[in-house]
Amino acid sequence: MARDERGVGAQSEDFAAWYNEVVFKAGLVDRGPVKGTMVIRPYGYRLWEQLQSELDRRIKDTGHENAYFPLLIPESYLSREAEHVEGFSPELAVVTHAGGKELEEKLVVRPTSETIIGEMMAKWISSHRDLPLLLNQWANVVRWELRPRMFLRTTEFLWQEGHTAHADEADAYRETMLALDIYREVARDLAAIPVVPGEKTPGERFAGAVATFTIEGMMRDGRALQLGTSHYMGTNFATAFDIRYTSEAGRGELCHTTSWGMSTRMIGGIVMTHGDDKGLVFPPRLAPYQVVIVPITRGGNVAVEEAADELARRLRAAGVRTHVDGRPQLSPGFKFNEWEMRGVPIRLELGPRDLAAGTAMMVRRLGDDGKQATSIDSLPESMPGVLDEFQAFLLARATEFRDSHTRTVDSWEDFADAVSIGWAWALHCGTRTCEEDIKSITAATPRCIPLDGEPANGACVRCGVASAYGKRVIFGRAY
Amino acid sequence: MARDERGVGAQSEDFAAWYNEVVFKAGLVDRGPVKGTMVIRPYGYRLWEQLQSELDRRIKDTGHENAYFPLLIPESYLSREAEHVEGFSPELAVVTHAGGKELEEKLVVRPTSETIIGEMMAKWISSHRDLPLLLNQWANVVRWELRPRMFLRTTEFLWQEGHTAHADEADAYRETMLALDIYREVARDLAAIPVVPGEKTPGERFAGAVATFTIEGMMRDGRALQLGTSHYMGTNFATAFDIRYTSEAGRGELCHTTSWGMSTRMIGGIVMTHGDDKGLVFPPRLAPYQVVIVPITRGGNVAVEEAADELARRLRAAGVRTHVDGRPQLSPGFKFNEWEMRGVPIRLELGPRDLAAGTAMMVRRLGDDGKQATSIDSLPESMPGVLDEFQAFLLARATEFRDSHTRTVDSWEDFADAVSIGWAWALHCGTRTCEEDIKSITAATPRCIPLDGEPANGACVRCGVASAYGKRVIFGRAY
Repeated sequence: MARDERGVGAQSEDFAAWYNEVVFKAGLVDRGPVKGTMVIRPYGYRLWEQLQSELDRRIKDTGHENAYFPLLIPESYLSREAEHVEGFSPELAVVTHAGGKELEEKLVVRPTSETIIGEMMAKWISSHRDLPLLLNQWANVVRWELRPRMFLRTTEFLWQEGHTAHADEADAYRETMLALDIYREVARDLAAIPVVPGEKTPGERFAGAVATFTIEGMMRDGRALQLGTSHYMGTNFATAFDIRYTSEAGRGELCHTTSWGMSTRMIGGIVMTHGDDKGLVFPPRLAPYQVVIVPITRGGNVAVEEAADELARRLRAAGVRTHVDGRPQLSPGFKFNEWEMRGVPIRLELGPRDLAAGTAMMVRRLGDDGKQATSIDSLPESMPGVLDEFQAFLLARATEFRDSHTRTVDSWEDFADAVSIGWAWALHCGTRTCEEDIKSITAATPRCIPLDGEPANGACVRCGVASAYGKRVIFGRAY
Repeated sequence: MARDERGVGAQSEDFAAWYNEVVFKAGLVDRGPVKGTMVIRPYGYRLWEQLQSELDRRIKDTGHENAYFPLLIPESYLSREAEHVEGFSPELAVVTHAGGKELEEKLVVRPTSETIIGEMMAKWISSHRDLPLLLNQWANVVRWELRPRMFLRTTEFLWQEGHTAHADEADAYRETMLALDIYREVARDLAAIPVVPGEKTPGERFAGAVATFTIEGMMRDGRALQLGTSHYMGTNFATAFDIRYTSEAGRGELCHTTSWGMSTRMIGGIVMTHGDDKGLVFPPRLAPYQVVIVPITRGGNVAVEEAADELARRLRAAGVRTHVDGRPQLSPGFKFNEWEMRGVPIRLELGPRDLAAGTAMMVRRLGDDGKQATSIDSLPESMPGVLDEFQAFLLARATEFRDSHTRTVDSWEDFADAVSIGWAWALHCGTRTCEEDIKSITAATPRCIPLDGEPANGACVRCGVASAYGKRVIFGRAY
């Protein structure tokens, strides 16, 4: 296919190649020198900051407090919870020397902070009055990746991790579901990703959890991406770290704990949910720039440049994140292509004739045909509405895509067909052997048992044994 | 001295013990399990978030962009700049194993990011049009500390590090001074610390820098604390990492780079600049809570509790960070002492009689005597002014303290006297041997050559040789 130097290869031809090209070319990310690490470049980091500030506000509004725990964890901490150490051991980076000496005890670079936070919780909690203890931390974590992929699986990534302690199971469960609901809302309302919330099957649980919940998004190649998880730990970590409280009745009791995280993986999810053959498409509520103004000045035109700057000032005053691309050495056509590739929702073109007519040419990144002459004076007032419409359009498009690539299936043939292009809602026996059998044949795995699934029972779609869970399970190939 | 269980030991009796007690007791920090690491607790982290958001805004307003670079740096990178590796080697934490295997090349946990950012700059910069490149990152860094002290010197700390590349020395110098001025302003206007900006003597320079600038604050024990630094690197890192650009004339040129950082050490600076025998005193512009309302309800009084909540809502709506201490199990007196110890600027006491009179008792943490009955209705309007006054009072008090503990000295006797209680402005020969001689006798080191120092020349206060620098140097004992 024809390929513009400034553009990217077609998403429709090779999704994986498209992804790998667009994240670099759009300036979201670069490779770090250590295998599997990434440099998040300013354009990608702005997206993360938008997401971070919105998520942080919701975390605080629901009563959680931010804190910061150390990066380096004594190796022995991880071993205290048997499943936890087994799950994370293969991924650990280990500090053996520091300050010019070999350490007496090795330190792991945190892959997650349950253990070190558990240790501190045990110290801070004594009475039922100290509960619930609702903590969150924004941090970097390291998990050694053998097959890294920018944003999706990197050796180091940024995330928030919530860690909470509660007096009983009911309160801890409420918390687990509260966090999941925040994630669902952030994914849907900000990232325009219509995720499905559900529980993981036992084989896909977090190492050390009693129950793991997830939000799953469908990417434009039909694969699933897990975009946030929330875990109910029962008393597993409380037992391992002795997190106890004295109840009102004066008895010593174990706490029930939770943890939940959302990471820079979300950036990859946004890229793969909304992007197209031309490159990225960013949802306005998270876009680094919501509007780019390209002044058409051919060799310099002060009046046009000033009008562009003035319009940008007025749009910014109206709360619109606006960028003026005044680079003199590049043609308007080059800029149009570049900002399309970089996913800016709205482009405004402003030339001498437009200015004379008091208008700018407005071009949406998606969803309409061609340019629309729009009164410059009305733009600061109308733009928030235009952006809201664009946001709603993206969510509707992604929902339609997901629904048209999802099938409820009852036969193995239909199952195999469904997971070759998207998701299958199927009855399953719930055994690990059967899950692995399905995976080896179709590459599909159980993504989740959807929270809002209808009650359903019957024969397992693969082995015919009676189904577990009381409802259908979503299967799909996943990142 | 008499000592309240709820309070802390007197600052005036043992400053170091006071500091170590108050940072823990006020809930700012806790010790991490690995020696020298700290857990920043929610009350301390809120202070950091206030500072961070204010500093971040100033960094962005001056054209810098945030990005994120990897934590793990190949060991060989550090060696490329000879002074840099020499300066940091003793402090490095080293990852030797990852993913279950021994690594071919050891990785250091970043002690600072000049090298890895230098490597990326070399990749991103090609033309003069790419300059200046103005980057900033918020990150954790690790430097192995043998004599750790919470916030002041910890094995891991949080900071921002600005890294910029420029076409020439003049532009890089402007940037170095711009960053220093942002730090001076943040310290003075937000933390109410009247810092002195100046240049470090060669012996105190950053490893790899051509010139290092600092802001120095005076703590209430007369010691100096370096609260932010800004470095002009010349072409040292550009040479080591091959950061080059093609000039307008088409020639290949080396970039001139800078770096600058401010860290969680600022929290320690605030504690030691404003605290007193009763505990912390927080400047309103950074205080986690600016106002605490203590309802006086003795056994429960719904009307008072509701009035306290309503007042808090109105204060928050007026932009005042307000906390209601409604803990039923604690007495008002306990709460008064606790919030004094935790440094909240303004306390409002609200009991049934106050409520009946339409007033609340206002108590400032410092600067006046006793309680002041204040109309509840007027508080949302008057409080911002009250907080501004308190902020100004702290800055004036700290300035007066600093000035009354600073002497311009011309004899060795006066010098030794001056640095035993504060700072000495003295002429100095500029040699390392003489600096070390002074340090071994008095424990004082050159803090900086103040930017606004008057021209002065003469005999070195210690050795009598002709002075260097053309102005006086500030000496003091330092953290």
